[in-house]
Amino acid sequence: MTPADVQQYLDGLTKPPGSLGRLEESAVRLATIQQTLAPKTSPRRLVIFAADHGVVEAGVSLWPSSVTGLMVANILNGGAASSVLAAQFQTELHLVDVGTQSEPLPRRARYFPQAIRKGSRNLAHESALTRAEFDAAWAIGSEHAQHAKTDGIRLVIAGEMGIGNSTPAACLAMLLANVPLEYAVGPGAGTDETRLAKKREVVAHAVDRARVNFASNPIDAIAAVAGLEIVAIAGFFAKAAEEKLTILLDGYIATAGLLIAETLAPGTTTQVLAGHCSAEPGHQLMLDFLCLSPILENWELRLGEGTGALLALPLLDASAAILTSMATLASFGIAPDA
Amino acid sequence: MTPADVQQYLDGLTKPPGSLGRLEESAVRLATIQQTLAPKTSPRRLVIFAADHGVVEAGVSLWPSSVTGLMVANILNGGAASSVLAAQFQTELHLVDVGTQSEPLPRRARYFPQAIRKGSRNLAHESALTRAEFDAAWAIGSEHAQHAKTDGIRLVIAGEMGIGNSTPAACLAMLLANVPLEYAVGPGAGTDETRLAKKREVVAHAVDRARVNFASNPIDAIAAVAGLEIVAIAGFFAKAAEEKLTILLDGYIATAGLLIAETLAPGTTTQVLAGHCSAEPGHQLMLDFLCLSPILENWELRLGEGTGALLALPLLDASAAILTSMATLASFGIAPDA
Repeated sequence: MTPADVQQYLDGLTKPPGSLGRLEESAVRLATIQQTLAPKTSPRRLVIFAADHGVVEAGVSLWPSSVTGLMVANILNGGAASSVLAAQFQTELHLVDVGTQSEPLPRRARYFPQAIRKGSRNLAHESALTRAEFDAAWAIGSEHAQHAKTDGIRLVIAGEMGIGNSTPAACLAMLLANVPLEYAVGPGAGTDETRLAKKREVVAHAVDRARVNFASNPIDAIAAVAGLEIVAIAGFFAKAAEEKLTILLDGYIATAGLLIAETLAPGTTTQVLAGHCSAEPGHQLMLDFLCLSPILENWELRLGEGTGALLALPLLDASAAILTSMATLASFGIAPDA
Repeated sequence: MTPADVQQYLDGLTKPPGSLGRLEESAVRLATIQQTLAPKTSPRRLVIFAADHGVVEAGVSLWPSSVTGLMVANILNGGAASSVLAAQFQTELHLVDVGTQSEPLPRRARYFPQAIRKGSRNLAHESALTRAEFDAAWAIGSEHAQHAKTDGIRLVIAGEMGIGNSTPAACLAMLLANVPLEYAVGPGAGTDETRLAKKREVVAHAVDRARVNFASNPIDAIAAVAGLEIVAIAGFFAKAAEEKLTILLDGYIATAGLLIAETLAPGTTTQVLAGHCSAEPGHQLMLDFLCLSPILENWELRLGEGTGALLALPLLDASAAILTSMATLASFGIAPDA
């Protein structure tokens, strides 16, 4: 089934052809990914991967690393934006601590304390991750995609929580999608001019070092500027795509994870719909590089946690509903005036 | 409660200030309309007003008037885009025939056959409606807003079904919001170059005639270029606003109804959120005139029936959920790095 086949079916429904605009574009992509005119967007699951970043000590973020652990608790307690939106849109929320600095929380449902180490190393001075840590983070992500498949999940979202993670994401945008520095490094979830200048300097140097190694050893080069939750997202996406789950992509950080996945597991992106284009200026360029068109444009979101994908989800539900439930013009005997 | 009060509350929730972008804008407007930090978007109802238009005989539409009645049946049977999206987003759907050319359908729940006449007159040659017909259509709309209030509905949407109704809507955009002809007359739900040229000619002449009368008798001038469902929508909005219901605005035709309501019942717009900006080029200018900012931009919708408002509804639900359910930074002891 090609996109043209899906569009032809849409054009035969009881509405003027094309009159549902962007909703039809989403319907075409969703049906093409799932290879059916009756695509499903449920059951669905948001998996949030959390980790800390050594580079925060270089002064790139307005918020201290301790906030990551506090937000993990907030997400699990239902008080974060991601928890509220996941509940609103009937999406199961799992949280995987793949490397925060905080002590693990008491055991509870849908919480997976699987920290590989207490945060990445400071990429301003050394490789953020070793090859073994990279592999371990990828494996954890892959394992959670496999769980989703086993549990009968049809659509997955990856979210993240990690103070400072727009810095490694910016490095990956430059290294893997050739995004220019001035676009790659924006304010993230919040910064000021001094921190922004510092962040640009840190990112530029780290990417220069990583580029030297990239041709001979791409994984080591990526590991040098990545973060544990970003690599876990990459492994999650690669396995989810392999298992033919539909992936709804969140913002800047999740897209950095997709860039890693697409580099190491080419074709992952064929299973992806982009939820939104972030306020972070490099995000549009990353989506362009991946040939993805976002469901929500100009919504100026810069929160992460999967919130942008969650906001796009009801619109994707609507795309599916249009395909599965509308009457056809032929069944109604309706045709344009001769 | 001012918009600034709502923004201040949002800035104290567990997220970087402003990081939910446009969702925060909707939350501010919704909370300001309802004067509470715990606004409600349910229960909600879509009322679709259907009517035919004599001007179709002038060749302005690609579809014959008989399609209006067929689509009324399709909407009630659950096969139209509006019925599918209303079901998807838990919105009760009422349909009021305020003047189609078709015979009434058998009695059924949520269907109101209240035709004032079998379509409006051809506005290319004469006044589309008499003053008595205008008043009757307004009263029917007002009655359905009153029903909604009585039934405990919190949020209302007005939709429309009426082949040819982008022609009177274009006249009203010019007459009431000073939209230039080349913006006011777009393709509507579907037309070709010949019909578009004819439509421009018809609209230009009708508006010229209406403008002569407008200063001395605005209601007669409006009635001359309106349609029964558009006037019913105006009455519906005016009464809904008076009853302090929250109004979620659909596209070009519904906005023409709002322009009538705002002209005759100033202040109606204070209860309104705009759902989307239509593909019809004049719509943005109408929204600008009314100082409304749409929830969905550039979605290229041109279907009507309330579908654009329905698609924006889950995003408005999300705005309300953020306000009512997120934890505050203060309760978590989180603050930016000093």
